[in-house]
Amino acid sequence: MILYTLDMIGVAVFAVSGALAAGRKHLDLLGVMVIAVVTALGGGTLRDVLLDRSPVFWVQQPDYLIVAISAGLLTVIYTAFFKPPQRSLLIADACGLALFSLSGAQIAEAARLHGLIVILMGACSGVAGGLIRDVLLVEIPIILKRGNIYATAAIAGIALYLALQKMGIPNSGSMLVGMGTIVSLRLAAIMWGLSLPVYRLRDQE
Amino acid sequence: MILYTLDMIGVAVFAVSGALAAGRKHLDLLGVMVIAVVTALGGGTLRDVLLDRSPVFWVQQPDYLIVAISAGLLTVIYTAFFKPPQRSLLIADACGLALFSLSGAQIAEAARLHGLIVILMGACSGVAGGLIRDVLLVEIPIILKRGNIYATAAIAGIALYLALQKMGIPNSGSMLVGMGTIVSLRLAAIMWGLSLPVYRLRDQE
Amino acid sequence: MILYTLDMIGVAVFAVSGALAAGRKHLDLLGVMVIAVVTALGGGTLRDVLLDRSPVFWVQQPDYLIVAISAGLLTVIYTAFFKPPQRSLLIADACGLALFSLSGAQIAEAARLHGLIVILMGACSGVAGGLIRDVLLVEIPIILKRGNIYATAAIAGIALYLALQKMGIPNSGSMLVGMGTIVSLRLAAIMWGLSLPVYRLRDQE
Repeated sequence: MILYTLDMIGVAVFAVSGALAAGRKHLDLLGVMVIAVVTALGGGTLRDVLLDRSPVFWVQQPDYLIVAISAGLLTVIYTAFFKPPQRSLLIADACGLALFSLSGAQIAEAARLHGLIVILMGACSGVAGGLIRDVLLVEIPIILKRGNIYATAAIAGIALYLALQKMGIPNSGSMLVGMGTIVSLRLAAIMWGLSLPVYRLRDQE
Repeated sequence: MILYTLDMIGVAVFAVSGALAAGRKHLDLLGVMVIAVVTALGGGTLRDVLLDRSPVFWVQQPDYLIVAISAGLLTVIYTAFFKPPQRSLLIADACGLALFSLSGAQIAEAARLHGLIVILMGACSGVAGGLIRDVLLVEIPIILKRGNIYATAAIAGIALYLALQKMGIPNSGSMLVGMGTIVSLRLAAIMWGLSLPVYRLRDQE
Repeated sequence: MILYTLDMIGVAVFAVSGALAAGRKHLDLLGVMVIAVVTALGGGTLRDVLLDRSPVFWVQQPDYLIVAISAGLLTVIYTAFFKPPQRSLLIADACGLALFSLSGAQIAEAARLHGLIVILMGACSGVAGGLIRDVLLVEIPIILKRGNIYATAAIAGIALYLALQKMGIPNSGSMLVGMGTIVSLRLAAIMWGLSLPVYRLRDQE
C-alpha cells in the first residue's frame, strides 16, 4: 500500500517534469499531455516490453495513466498563474528516480534474472522515460550528456541494494539504503555540480 | 472484407505521406522505403507491442508490408513525373487516421481494456506512425507541435464511438459516426486552420 | 560454438563503433556506455520485440551485455592513448553487419515466417542498432541518408541466402555466400563510394 502510494507520487512527479520540459518547446496542449505521460510511464513501459511482461503495467492498471494525465493538466494550470518551484521539483524528481529504479529492479529480481540485468532494468525504469521525452523533443538526452550523475546514481543505488541483500540484510532495509543512496547522490550532484568525466574523441584534430 | 480493404487503403495512404515527407530530407531510395513503411505500420506496431499481441500484425499478414512498400515505390515513381496532389492527399490522410484509430480502438476493446486505454490505443494506432517518422527525420513530431487537431480529432472520434456504444447504438452505427467525426474535425481544422492553444512556460523571462 | 564466437565478435565490433560515434558528441562516460550497448544490442532487441520472443536475447544471456560493456570501456581507454584504426574498424563493422543480418534472418526463418519478413527481420537485426544510436544522438540515421549501401547490402545478402536455400544448396553454404555478399558489397561501396540514388521531391520549387 505504501509502495503503491509512493509509486503514484513518482508517476505524478515525472509527469510534472515532463510537462515543464514540454513547456519550453511551444507544443500544444495535447502535445504537453503526451510528453507528460511518456516521461512518467516510458521507463516502466520499456522495462515491461523488454521483459515481455504482458501487457505493460499501465494497461492493466489505468490508475497510472489517470495520475499522469492529471498531474500534467495541473502543471499546465498551475504554471499559468505561478512560477514552477524549481528546487522542490528537483528533490521530488530525485525521489521519483530512487523509487522507480528500485521498484523496477525488484520486478527484474522477482523474474530471477542475472544481477547485471536487474541493475539495467532498474536504471531503465528510472531513466528511460526522460530519455524518450528528450528524443521526442529532439534533444540529445540529458542523461547521456552532462549527466550530473543521474543514471549513475540509479546504478549505484541498485548495486548497493543488491550487495546488501546478498549480505543477508532484509529486503526493506536494503531497499531503504538503496533509495537513500540514489536521492543523496542526486542532490549532492546538483548542489556541487558533480558530473562524470566527458569522453572526447580526438581523431578529428 | 470491407474493413480489410479500408485498412489496406489506410496503409497505402500513410505510406505515401511517409514517402513524401522523406522526399524533403534527401534520403536515398532505401531510406524513403523505410520511412514509408514505418509511417504506415508504426502505429499499429506500437499498439501490438504495448498490448503484447504476438507477433505484430504485419508479421502475421505480410500483405500489409507489401502494400506499404508498393505504395512507397509508386510515390517515388509518380513524383518523378508529376506534382503530388496535396489536397486529395490531405483528405486521404484524414480517412486513414479515422480508419486506423477506430480499428485500433476495437482491438483494445476486444481485449476488454479500460475505456481510457481503448482511447489511447486507438489514437496510438492512428498517430504513432507519423510520430516515429518525425523522430527518424529528426523533427519535433508534428502531432505534438502545432497539432492542427490531429491526435485530438482521433481522441474525440474514439470517445464519441465509445459513448454511443454505451448508449446502446449498434457497433457499425457508432463506428461510422466516430469515423465521420475524425474526418470532419481534421478537414475543418485544415480548412480554417484550427488548432489547440499552445502551452508556453514563462519561467525564463 | 563458432556461431556463438562470431556473434560475440559482432557485438564487440558494434559496441566499439557506438562508442566512437558517442565520442564525437561530448557525452559523459555513462552516456558513451549506453550508446555502445544500444548500438550493439538494439537491432536484435527490436527483432525480438517484434517477433515477441520472450524475453529478449541479452536478458536470457547476459554475456552479450558484458561483452558490449567491456568493448565500450576498452574503446574509451584505447582512444585515450591511440588513434582508432578507422580502416580495420570499417572491415570489422562490415563483418558484424553480415553476421547479425544472417543470424537474425535464421531466427525469423526458424519461426516459419514469410520470406519478406525474414529479409526484414534480418536487416533489422543488422541495422537497427545503428539507427537507434543515431536517433539518441539526434542525427538523421546514416542508413537512411547517404546509405553507402549499408542496409541495401544486408537485404541483398539475405535475399541471396534465401534464394540459394530454395535451390537446395545446404544451409552452411548459402549462409557463407550470403555473408560474403554483404561484406563485399559493403567494402566495395566504401572503396568506390557507391550509393543508392537520392530521392528528391521537387514540389517546393
